[in-house]
Amino acid sequence: MTRMALVGYGYWGPKLARNIASNPETALVGVCDLREERQAHAQRDNPTAFVTGDYDALMARDDVQAVVIATPVAAHYRLARQALLAGKHVLVEKPITEKSSEAAELCALAENLGLVLAVDHTFLFTGAVTKLKQLVSSGELGELYYIDSVRVNLGLFQHDVNVLYDLAPHDLSIVSHLVGQTPVTVQAMGACHARACQENLVYMHLEYPSGLVAHFHLSWLAPVKIRKTLIAGTNKMIVWDDLEQSEKIKVYDKGITMAPDEESLHNIKIDYRTGDMLAPKIPGQEALSAEIGHFARCCRGEETPISSGRFGLDVVRILEAAQQSLRQGGARLELAGM
Amino acid sequence: MTRMALVGYGYWGPKLARNIASNPETALVGVCDLREERQAHAQRDNPTAFVTGDYDALMARDDVQAVVIATPVAAHYRLARQALLAGKHVLVEKPITEKSSEAAELCALAENLGLVLAVDHTFLFTGAVTKLKQLVSSGELGELYYIDSVRVNLGLFQHDVNVLYDLAPHDLSIVSHLVGQTPVTVQAMGACHARACQENLVYMHLEYPSGLVAHFHLSWLAPVKIRKTLIAGTNKMIVWDDLEQSEKIKVYDKGITMAPDEESLHNIKIDYRTGDMLAPKIPGQEALSAEIGHFARCCRGEETPISSGRFGLDVVRILEAAQQSLRQGGARLELAGM
Amino acid sequence: MTRMALVGYGYWGPKLARNIASNPETALVGVCDLREERQAHAQRDNPTAFVTGDYDALMARDDVQAVVIATPVAAHYRLARQALLAGKHVLVEKPITEKSSEAAELCALAENLGLVLAVDHTFLFTGAVTKLKQLVSSGELGELYYIDSVRVNLGLFQHDVNVLYDLAPHDLSIVSHLVGQTPVTVQAMGACHARACQENLVYMHLEYPSGLVAHFHLSWLAPVKIRKTLIAGTNKMIVWDDLEQSEKIKVYDKGITMAPDEESLHNIKIDYRTGDMLAPKIPGQEALSAEIGHFARCCRGEETPISSGRFGLDVVRILEAAQQSLRQGGARLELAGM
Amino acid sequence: MTRMALVGYGYWGPKLARNIASNPETALVGVCDLREERQAHAQRDNPTAFVTGDYDALMARDDVQAVVIATPVAAHYRLARQALLAGKHVLVEKPITEKSSEAAELCALAENLGLVLAVDHTFLFTGAVTKLKQLVSSGELGELYYIDSVRVNLGLFQHDVNVLYDLAPHDLSIVSHLVGQTPVTVQAMGACHARACQENLVYMHLEYPSGLVAHFHLSWLAPVKIRKTLIAGTNKMIVWDDLEQSEKIKVYDKGITMAPDEESLHNIKIDYRTGDMLAPKIPGQEALSAEIGHFARCCRGEETPISSGRFGLDVVRILEAAQQSLRQGGARLELAGM
Repeated sequence: MTRMALVGYGYWGPKLARNIASNPETALVGVCDLREERQAHAQRDNPTAFVTGDYDALMARDDVQAVVIATPVAAHYRLARQALLAGKHVLVEKPITEKSSEAAELCALAENLGLVLAVDHTFLFTGAVTKLKQLVSSGELGELYYIDSVRVNLGLFQHDVNVLYDLAPHDLSIVSHLVGQTPVTVQAMGACHARACQENLVYMHLEYPSGLVAHFHLSWLAPVKIRKTLIAGTNKMIVWDDLEQSEKIKVYDKGITMAPDEESLHNIKIDYRTGDMLAPKIPGQEALSAEIGHFARCCRGEETPISSGRFGLDVVRILEAAQQSLRQGGARLELAGM
Repeated sequence: MTRMALVGYGYWGPKLARNIASNPETALVGVCDLREERQAHAQRDNPTAFVTGDYDALMARDDVQAVVIATPVAAHYRLARQALLAGKHVLVEKPITEKSSEAAELCALAENLGLVLAVDHTFLFTGAVTKLKQLVSSGELGELYYIDSVRVNLGLFQHDVNVLYDLAPHDLSIVSHLVGQTPVTVQAMGACHARACQENLVYMHLEYPSGLVAHFHLSWLAPVKIRKTLIAGTNKMIVWDDLEQSEKIKVYDKGITMAPDEESLHNIKIDYRTGDMLAPKIPGQEALSAEIGHFARCCRGEETPISSGRFGLDVVRILEAAQQSLRQGGARLELAGM
Repeated sequence: MTRMALVGYGYWGPKLARNIASNPETALVGVCDLREERQAHAQRDNPTAFVTGDYDALMARDDVQAVVIATPVAAHYRLARQALLAGKHVLVEKPITEKSSEAAELCALAENLGLVLAVDHTFLFTGAVTKLKQLVSSGELGELYYIDSVRVNLGLFQHDVNVLYDLAPHDLSIVSHLVGQTPVTVQAMGACHARACQENLVYMHLEYPSGLVAHFHLSWLAPVKIRKTLIAGTNKMIVWDDLEQSEKIKVYDKGITMAPDEESLHNIKIDYRTGDMLAPKIPGQEALSAEIGHFARCCRGEETPISSGRFGLDVVRILEAAQQSLRQGGARLELAGM
Repeated sequence: MTRMALVGYGYWGPKLARNIASNPETALVGVCDLREERQAHAQRDNPTAFVTGDYDALMARDDVQAVVIATPVAAHYRLARQALLAGKHVLVEKPITEKSSEAAELCALAENLGLVLAVDHTFLFTGAVTKLKQLVSSGELGELYYIDSVRVNLGLFQHDVNVLYDLAPHDLSIVSHLVGQTPVTVQAMGACHARACQENLVYMHLEYPSGLVAHFHLSWLAPVKIRKTLIAGTNKMIVWDDLEQSEKIKVYDKGITMAPDEESLHNIKIDYRTGDMLAPKIPGQEALSAEIGHFARCCRGEETPISSGRFGLDVVRILEAAQQSLRQGGARLELAGM
């Protein structure tokens, strides 16, 4: 049983609280929110929890082993740092921090103190991504060639964040999780179609050490909602349509084959091959519940975070590089030098 | 009645011959192919035509008013130049020439001689593109924001041409036709996944003077065939799925609205709006037949080529710039300076 | 403000309670359930309501103007009768009663007492059915030819009810609402594929006075969930796919045209005609909320029940006839004689 | 090498001729058509064939081993009978004859003479039906529960034939081929929506000895073209959508499981089970080519007709019974007694 406190009782907080409270591996011992109205709400929902507006008081409690941070991103760094220094394990909402330098500092701190630092990229715990990870890890796709992701819909333009920061964290965490690599180069092109200065359309293009290419189409200006990802390997290919009800993932036994041309050693004969398509059953798990259980087991040293601080740091570094590329008209930037 | 000769009786030639012969506005008076086997084939299909392997002889005939060139692209420049110098109108297969400099020379020549020079971008004459042109020209979409096109399938890798030159001419001619502008900047990123050195995956990104952005996903390495184009305007948006049988074009009465924020003159309030979707009936025309009729009317001075030499030249210039950007790792190139 | 009491606080009851309590036109003054555990639940959810296990006590209260009955169907007749005799308006869950004779008695009673008797066929108040009713009533479909409905999925076989009684009430209420007619003949064929004796597959076939035919495919044994209805008229046709997210209703400007054949007065020349397809925007209303408001206005005499007791009686009569036809191997039964 | 003659050179005849001529197992030695214009056409297409209007002359030739009959159905009986009596094997267009009594006579005659009598139900030789037959025969579906087929589109109303005779032969031959049984009962309900008296909408319902139910929705009055068949078995289920390009057949690893209820020996506990979906690769065969080869091998005694005279007779008997049921308002008729 891991005893947890929750900071931030806004939109996402109550969902986290409910999952922490109902999970047999975890207990919700405290909730902190600066707003009195939200404190009252939290107390009503969680009658036995210590509810407060005083974060210092919460951190001083010995019965809090882990802190879950669900505040606006601007407060992540300060709250996570204080929690780590108070000896608590930390699960923080995505993105881990505003700046990658802050995230790097938190990662080093957690490592020095021997504490868990994890980032809440909930998508990684859905049934679909769990199945995709199995498929990619099994090697049956062969060598990964490219990943193309479309995440578009008619969305409210936001004044304080562009479509890159709104939508890309989902895709970046999923792709990083699936391929287990950090990109070498980052490129992003965008457009701002309202007179407001935030991009509502962004294309992002990443190259990985293995030769894998990942491309993202992110838009708030599409008439239909699309959440579709293509994963092309040498042996098999996947189309993942997250809006499909019953057949979200389709695995195509299709690919290209290469053989030396008999006429010449210099030529390669390339052909393609088609076979069955399989739509595997997706496990029906509840993502947040799976994530809280996993975090609890990480706190107890039984598992290693799927979405660690370093994982979250990489996501922020890619976002920063993409944002810089956007400002430079789509320049191809080396991530290592950023 | 416009009397035409056809050069090149390979894959596409017989289709052109059949359309020329059956159109009441045109007659097929001659066919030229260097291969004797193809000459015999042509003569069998077209018993009354003068069939030859001698292009000079064909060009010397007074009863040939126009020449249709359907040979490999390497011969386009030489054959078209000779035809124009012989006083014939010319319709040449896409792309017009290998190099833009050659195309520019042909355009100037045709203009000086007062002859028609047209390029066979057949797609422009399909019912779907005809309907799209009406929709865009009517202004009901409002200001065009962006066009996103996906043209992918599992295709045979080719040794002599990359996926850009294989697939992009279709999209470039369609977008140019719809928006009537030439892009300002061109960017292309690609990957070559077989050991052969030709790209099998290319993303191309164009910016137009009006602020319009066009983006293209071209691939031979996708498990499913996709031909889908999104056209987003201020007032309405279109999704064109060319593989749909009955509802190829869907017009969404959706868009964003901008209004000055009441609290501050500096802010713009942006909201979105959703309404009906209309899938208009697509005219059932046969593209090649429509194109031959149009070319005949151009030869008689009754119409102006939809797909002129200059139009074809622009397509080649964009391809050249994209190819150069590919070689420079996706650099953003100004088309004007090329 | 119409003051209502609710009887039955099981699965559906809390939803009704929440809608009654939150609607500005209605107030929830009392709740009755025989189970103490459900009473406690109801009191927690509705702190100001009079919660009881004593139906007589509830009926005796002067501040209850209307009763909403959400108990198992076996109790409907008794509870509704008592409520009417106590001078309360009644809204009862579908089906109105087990037997049509009971329903007929309730209808007569309500009419004699001048009270509202309505049946909760919630589907009629969805945005999709509201839009369908507009389309059919406007006459733009022309004469209605046939309605074909498929409502299938992989469902738990039930021991106490067959697929006809489980699924058909939805379709029957929708079709009756749309066409405003009672069928003349009823036919039903079915099969029971488990050793249990309840049908898991039923086809029902209805003929209406106008010549309209309605056909229903109801199954618990299909691998995919389908909710699709075709409505064919002389001038236009509709396909309603209730599982579609964004384009539930498609109106096809297609139909047949009949003209006297010129050669003979006895022959009719029939041709078909195709045009645009329109997917109208569906109003985003919450069905239960709309229904409660409508019932309140009926109680106040401002509106007439869309789904009256007589309407619910017709549904039960058709079900009874279909069940009898099932037992007679699909015999075609006249509804009037039942 | 089987030498064949073809009778009837209308719409379907030239396709048969091309396949007979190009198949290495067959040769086209003669063609018969009463119309001189069609004779000229046939001679041009098949320069080495004996083309005639005199059927007797054709039947008298010793070099004709088999006759393929592609005339209007009214002539089938007479031409097939004469061919059999002349000692020729026969492949006749569907339906085999107008009346089942004629078909029965031809079957008996062929059997007595030791000749092959086959019916051209081409659909059975498509890649999709070949794959379906494999899937059903393998037993992996378990016990077959029901087959539901929808074959609708906006079609030209015909004066001389109703939608039953136009469309049902396809479905009946496919279902008979898949299940290898003859139905016990036949029911059909229909409607005629134009003032012409031929049904444009028919529902047909068949029950088989094994308990299998097959249901067909046939219509000329639907706004969209649908060719969709559901095959539900105990263990697996299939959805076959013949208009799908790449995934025509989907095999769902879904079904119901039955176990004796522990509480009572009389009760059966029924549950459902969901698993993967597989869309197997469909062999890309050309149906008519496969059929001609099969017929040739039947003539040489190497294979037994998939679509024999008896098979075609069963199709006609079911059509006759369905037609009679239509006239009797959907009465359930025993096929054995017809």
